[in-house]
Amino acid sequence: MASAVVTPAFIEAIRARLPDLRLLTEVADRESHRADETAYLPTGLPGAVALPTETAQVVELVRICAEFDVPIVPRGAGSGLSGGATGLEGALTIAFTAMDRIVEIDRDNLCVVTQPGVINARLKAAVAEVCLFYAPDPASFEMCSIGGNLGTNAGGLCCVKYGQTRDSVLSLEVVMADGSLIRTGGKNLKDVAGYSLTHLIVGSQGTLALVTEATLRLRPAPPARSTLIAFFPTLSAAGDAVAAIATAGVSPATLELMDRFTIRAVDDMHGLGLDRDAAAMLMVESDLPALAADDELARAEAACTGAGATTTLRSRDAAEADLLRQARRAAHWALERLGEVKMEDVAVPRSRVPDMLRAVEAIAARHDVRIGTFGHAGDGNLHPDLVLERGDPNNERITKVVQADLYRAALDLGGTVTGEHGIGSARVEWLEAQRGPDAIRVMRAIKTALDPQGLFNPGRVLP
Amino acid sequence: MASAVVTPAFIEAIRARLPDLRLLTEVADRESHRADETAYLPTGLPGAVALPTETAQVVELVRICAEFDVPIVPRGAGSGLSGGATGLEGALTIAFTAMDRIVEIDRDNLCVVTQPGVINARLKAAVAEVCLFYAPDPASFEMCSIGGNLGTNAGGLCCVKYGQTRDSVLSLEVVMADGSLIRTGGKNLKDVAGYSLTHLIVGSQGTLALVTEATLRLRPAPPARSTLIAFFPTLSAAGDAVAAIATAGVSPATLELMDRFTIRAVDDMHGLGLDRDAAAMLMVESDLPALAADDELARAEAACTGAGATTTLRSRDAAEADLLRQARRAAHWALERLGEVKMEDVAVPRSRVPDMLRAVEAIAARHDVRIGTFGHAGDGNLHPDLVLERGDPNNERITKVVQADLYRAALDLGGTVTGEHGIGSARVEWLEAQRGPDAIRVMRAIKTALDPQGLFNPGRVLP
Repeated sequence: MASAVVTPAFIEAIRARLPDLRLLTEVADRESHRADETAYLPTGLPGAVALPTETAQVVELVRICAEFDVPIVPRGAGSGLSGGATGLEGALTIAFTAMDRIVEIDRDNLCVVTQPGVINARLKAAVAEVCLFYAPDPASFEMCSIGGNLGTNAGGLCCVKYGQTRDSVLSLEVVMADGSLIRTGGKNLKDVAGYSLTHLIVGSQGTLALVTEATLRLRPAPPARSTLIAFFPTLSAAGDAVAAIATAGVSPATLELMDRFTIRAVDDMHGLGLDRDAAAMLMVESDLPALAADDELARAEAACTGAGATTTLRSRDAAEADLLRQARRAAHWALERLGEVKMEDVAVPRSRVPDMLRAVEAIAARHDVRIGTFGHAGDGNLHPDLVLERGDPNNERITKVVQADLYRAALDLGGTVTGEHGIGSARVEWLEAQRGPDAIRVMRAIKTALDPQGLFNPGRVLP
Repeated sequence: MASAVVTPAFIEAIRARLPDLRLLTEVADRESHRADETAYLPTGLPGAVALPTETAQVVELVRICAEFDVPIVPRGAGSGLSGGATGLEGALTIAFTAMDRIVEIDRDNLCVVTQPGVINARLKAAVAEVCLFYAPDPASFEMCSIGGNLGTNAGGLCCVKYGQTRDSVLSLEVVMADGSLIRTGGKNLKDVAGYSLTHLIVGSQGTLALVTEATLRLRPAPPARSTLIAFFPTLSAAGDAVAAIATAGVSPATLELMDRFTIRAVDDMHGLGLDRDAAAMLMVESDLPALAADDELARAEAACTGAGATTTLRSRDAAEADLLRQARRAAHWALERLGEVKMEDVAVPRSRVPDMLRAVEAIAARHDVRIGTFGHAGDGNLHPDLVLERGDPNNERITKVVQADLYRAALDLGGTVTGEHGIGSARVEWLEAQRGPDAIRVMRAIKTALDPQGLFNPGRVLP
């Protein structure tokens, strides 16, 4: 495993071999690359921060790090929720912020070639200008980068219809730990030549390869969305509605859930007039053409009513639909107004969503803590947000025990400790409990084969 | 690399440790497991053929092979088109034919758990009984097995809408070369815990792991399909129509092409009254509900007419739609009536389909051979079928040079030598030309890390 740190000789080598590279060595600059959005995790201060603009610079940085045995932390926009890109003490952080060119929008082949530093929302906007659609939409899409999305195989609201980030990747250009540069594919929709390095590297959080360019799948822009919201007297009823929507063959663009605690926090923040006494709310969006959307939402509404919804409402226009969607996206920030928030990311088989929601309630009661749960019910991915008193010295301890209970509950239901945020460093000690020692050994063998010095983001993903 | 062969001592060990295992040692039985559907490839005679019924037997077989250093060829239904499961001289073939139980159909979570020996059509039929749909549909679906589909990441007609086999896999149970048994996931739609071994193993043709069980994604059964066919005076016009359909946001269930040579062969076989003078025919299917299907096919028809289609026809009923689909599926067999057929499987970015079609014509003219081309135009995957005189001693040489020209043409267009059939042994010498030496080194490193003895299907996929 790599064990050296950034030294003056290392800095000197970078400056000599990459005179045009922006390299940050001041403490203040390094500090600003220390943390991500998992504020409660321990972090290290990077020994230096490199901001390459071109692939060739990344190749050379990797070679220099190999020579000096210095670990590399690849970093996107710093909005991660798993401690996957937080600083390692004395290591080199490569921030891909400045590799932010959209290289090509290929309308004929419905794909875009982009550098990894491009912010998700900017990519969406750029392709929307030519009536195309990039589907993956993490709640943080206005601040997260494509490179980070690739690292974590990021999800979001509309994965229930369009899949996670991996499902939109046609090809990657990556730098391997030995400094070689590989293109894992092309613009082909089908290609079975050899192992799919594309699929393996997406979601590996920079531990196997550094992504320097990606070719991503686009779709023709769908119509503006229509929205249905439904309120339920019990969590079970909401869970039944989710199942009924899926088994009815309705395939909405989003299928989101909020529990009572979250409904109230969102309503306090946005004054939307939500049903504050409901146990749960579902938000269903359709992006089909007008008449088909009406039909789709009518079927979803029937499923909700059949499952016991007390109230259902449809957005009257695009502005109202936008407002509802923004409210859901802002759930985490609404909860953040109430205290120090720790967001979790469990997922379970869809039929177990009601069980998971009940387990969260029981865990909150057992530890006498506040937990607001919201998330992507349509694909079984829930974000229980632990809301703690700010500055309470017990917070770290409470967080630990509540997390453990949540993870154990998810695993007992056949679920996962992370649906879309990643193992990073936050959940690394749970990977073996979920996957088992044999699977870890296989993952470790792949890691060692591709990065024998252990230079790429050590300690992340794998224990 | 493994170098031993099946010996009496090896057979003895298997019989002693797995007394209930069906083990074939007679020459006739071994001969019947020698070839797949790529009849022109050299093959070896297996030293023995094991037909396990349970995972535990596979684990024990892998352990015994490791002890005796005997290579293993995993085999499904033998319908492969890449020489991925053909016999290796003296090796053990594990035929998964008898592991043919459908373990569970989970309607609530829209998934099925199955052993690998189940025939694709049987799985489709079993889930259809409860109104569910397993999407992947290779043309050979009535004879190919799920295990083979997983090995090659098989495609088919409706990948253009539903993706390839990999896109329908939630989780695998696999035996690794060291005899460990791993479950790569569960029934979760989203799960980013660790590297995705699922995605890596699908498409690796038994060179990294042996699949003993798979959890596959299902969908509610779509309505019966409606069909449009359109005839074009030039290949370019058909290519333009394909592009126009995609960019119009029409997402048909299938979007298939046949060239003139294939149209005539199919029409000769089925007497469908096709336009025998057209340069190309497109078949477009919609599986949306009735009115939406009408709308979808109307938009596809407009795109075809706009691109210069001379005739367009809609199926009047389900029977007629079935007939057209069967005709397209039978294209390869229709061509086989005309001579000895070598089917290729190139794919190119969708916009390059007309270029690829023209390249095929030029190659046929240059070598004075007959090539019928058909395939999945909607995702750029074409099957040029080389039709040779039966028994001509020059066939092997001609096949080799025509293949080389086809592969070179596909690679020059940014394409791949195989879209859905696999590298197997048939295309192994082309992998490096497509992926480059650095990518091969990475794939080789993964292979060596997971199978250091080189026991699993040696010589396949990787050169």
